[in-house]
Amino acid sequence: MPQPQAIAIDTVALDDASSAIVILDQTRLPSETVTLRLTDQEAIWQAIRTLQVRGAPAIGVTAAMGLYLAAKSFAAETDDLGAFWERFRAAKAFLATARPTAVNLFWALDRMENAAIACAATSPRDIAACLFAEATAIRDEDIVACAAIGAHGLALVQPGDGILTHCNAGRLAAVRYGTALAPIYVGLERGVSFRVFVDETRPLLQGARLTAYELHALGIDATLICDNMASQVMQNGWVQAVFVGCDRLAMNGDACNKVGTSGLAILAQHYGIPFYVFAPVSTIDPKASGGGEIPIEERSGGEIAEMWYKSRMAPAGMRIYNPAFDVTDHALISAIVTERGVLRPPYTDTIPALLEREGR
Amino acid sequence: MPQPQAIAIDTVALDDASSAIVILDQTRLPSETVTLRLTDQEAIWQAIRTLQVRGAPAIGVTAAMGLYLAAKSFAAETDDLGAFWERFRAAKAFLATARPTAVNLFWALDRMENAAIACAATSPRDIAACLFAEATAIRDEDIVACAAIGAHGLALVQPGDGILTHCNAGRLAAVRYGTALAPIYVGLERGVSFRVFVDETRPLLQGARLTAYELHALGIDATLICDNMASQVMQNGWVQAVFVGCDRLAMNGDACNKVGTSGLAILAQHYGIPFYVFAPVSTIDPKASGGGEIPIEERSGGEIAEMWYKSRMAPAGMRIYNPAFDVTDHALISAIVTERGVLRPPYTDTIPALLEREGR
Repeated sequence: MPQPQAIAIDTVALDDASSAIVILDQTRLPSETVTLRLTDQEAIWQAIRTLQVRGAPAIGVTAAMGLYLAAKSFAAETDDLGAFWERFRAAKAFLATARPTAVNLFWALDRMENAAIACAATSPRDIAACLFAEATAIRDEDIVACAAIGAHGLALVQPGDGILTHCNAGRLAAVRYGTALAPIYVGLERGVSFRVFVDETRPLLQGARLTAYELHALGIDATLICDNMASQVMQNGWVQAVFVGCDRLAMNGDACNKVGTSGLAILAQHYGIPFYVFAPVSTIDPKASGGGEIPIEERSGGEIAEMWYKSRMAPAGMRIYNPAFDVTDHALISAIVTERGVLRPPYTDTIPALLEREGR
Repeated sequence: MPQPQAIAIDTVALDDASSAIVILDQTRLPSETVTLRLTDQEAIWQAIRTLQVRGAPAIGVTAAMGLYLAAKSFAAETDDLGAFWERFRAAKAFLATARPTAVNLFWALDRMENAAIACAATSPRDIAACLFAEATAIRDEDIVACAAIGAHGLALVQPGDGILTHCNAGRLAAVRYGTALAPIYVGLERGVSFRVFVDETRPLLQGARLTAYELHALGIDATLICDNMASQVMQNGWVQAVFVGCDRLAMNGDACNKVGTSGLAILAQHYGIPFYVFAPVSTIDPKASGGGEIPIEERSGGEIAEMWYKSRMAPAGMRIYNPAFDVTDHALISAIVTERGVLRPPYTDTIPALLEREGR
C-alpha cells in the first residue's frame, strides 16, 4: 500500500535524543520493511559492511553520525582529552575499515576529524558537540545538493512525462531525494507527477528491489520492466526522458555508471529521447580525461547464475562475464545535471569551467 | 564437463525399436540432465503441455512421432480398419489439445492424418508403417532445413568471430542444429569455431538455462552475460555478428522475436556490427505487411518478480510490464537467413520473391 508520508523519513537519521542512527535495512527490501536503531560501533560497522545501508552519500552520512555517537559516549566516560582523542581515533580507524572502496566513507570520517580539531574545545563534551554539528552539516549538505539536483532536473521535463531509470540513484542511496530520482521527488512536493519506468537492473536487481520499493512506497506511478524491455517501452512512445545516476564522470563527459547504462543511452538516441546523467560535483574525476581511463570492475559470475535463485540457473563450469559498470560515451548524453546546474556539450568546456568555479 | 558426443543426440528421437520417444527434459535444465522415454499418449501430451519439450519444430516432430506410436499400438490390437480410424482420430484430437498456440503442432498432426489417408492401405499395420515413414520425414526435413540455415549462416562469418545470441533458437528448439545457433553447429562439424556470447534472456532465462546448456555441453566457447551487458561486450570489440531467431516475419522484413531482440539490433547498428535474423520459411506471415500488425503478447508480472526466486523481488502490488516479444525494424536487419538462402534488403522485394518460388 502506498505510504506518501514516507517522504518525511530520511534514509539515514539520528533519533530525537541523538542516541542512535535510524536506518531502513536495505538487505531486507522489498520483502520486509525493517527499521534498525544502531547505537554501538560494531552495529554501525556491520550495517555499512553488509549493505544494510549503501550508496556513497548515505554511507558517508552514516559514518559521520557513527563517529559522533562514539565521541559522545567517550565524552560521557572521560574528561581527559588525551584519552578521548585516543579512543576517537581508534573509532575512526575502525569505521574506515567497513568498506574498502567507498570514497565518501573516508571523506566523511576525515571531515569529522578535521572538525573536531578545528573545534579547539577544552573538553571531550564540547568536542562531541562540534561533531554533532558537523555530522548534521554533512547530512544537510547532502539533502540540499540532492534537492538542487532535483530542481535542475525537474526543469528538463514536462508534467506527466514518462521517465525511464536504471539501478538505484534514489533516496535509498542518499539521505533524501537521491540524484536521478530527485526530480521526481521534488516534483512530488510541487504537485508535478510523472510515469516512471524502472529497469530491474540485473544481476543485483537494485531497480526491482530498491528503486521500485521507494517509488511504490511514495505512491508514484511506477512500472517495473526487465532491462531488455526498455526498447519496447521506448518504441511504445512511453518514455520522454531517461534519468540515470553516475559513479564517476570523466573530464570529457564520458560517464561510468551501473552496467546497462550505455545501452540505454544508445536506445534513447535511436528513438530520439533525451538522455540525462545525474552527477553530483563530487563524482567528477579530474584525473580521468576520458572514459577509457576508468577501470571497469568485474564481479563474480555467481551473481548472475546463483544469487537470489532457488537453484543454479546456468550450467556448472559455464564461463560468465559480469562487468559491474559500463562507460557511456559523452556524445550520447544530452545533459549532465549537477547541484550547481545543468551542463551541456561540449563537456570539455563546461566540466572544467564548473570545477574552476568550485575552486577544485 | 563438455560432452562433444552430445551432438549425435537429437532433441526428439524414436528409440531403436521405434517403441518410445526419447527427449531431454527441458524443465530440469540446467541443474539436471534427465532423459525421458515417452511411450503412452498421456505422457507425450504431458511432455508437450509442461514444456519438457518446447520450440515449435521440436513440438511438431514430437506430436508426429506420438501419433505414429499410437497408430502402431492400435494396429497391434485390431485388424479392423473402422475401429483403427476411430481410435487414430481420437488420439490425434487428444494430442492437438496439448498446447493451444503452437502452429507446428496442428500442422504436424494434419500432415500425419493426410499421410495415413494417402497411404490407401488395407490394414492398420500398413497404415502404421506409412505413419512411421511420415514422422521420420517430418523429422528429417527439420534437420535438413536447419542444416541448410546453418550452412547459409556460416558463410556470413569468419572463423573465430564473436557471435552474440539471445534466447534459445538452438538444438533444444528443433531436432538438431536449431536456427540461429545452426551455423555454430555446422561450423563445429567442419572444424570452424566461434566465441559465443549468450544473453541470459530475462525473465524466463532461456539463454542461461537452455542456450548456455547446449553450447556448454558441446564444448563450444560460450560466455553467459546479463541482457544489459551486451553493449559493454560490443564496446569491448568482442562481437562480429549478432544471430537471433524469429517467431514471425512480416512481409517488409520486420521481425517479431523474444523481447530484447530489437534493443540488440539498435546496439549492433550503433557499433557497426551486422545483425542477422534466422527465420525458416514457415515463419513468414504473408498476412502481416509490417511489424505493427503483429500483436505483442503480454505475460504475467509474476515471471519477473517471483518466478525462480527464493523470495519476491519487487514490492507487492507493484505494476509490472512484461511483453514476451518485440518487433525489430527491418532497417536494422542486415540479412534474413532461411533454409532457401540469405535474403537481403529491400525485403519488400526479396521476401515476396521467395514465397513465389516456394509456391505459397
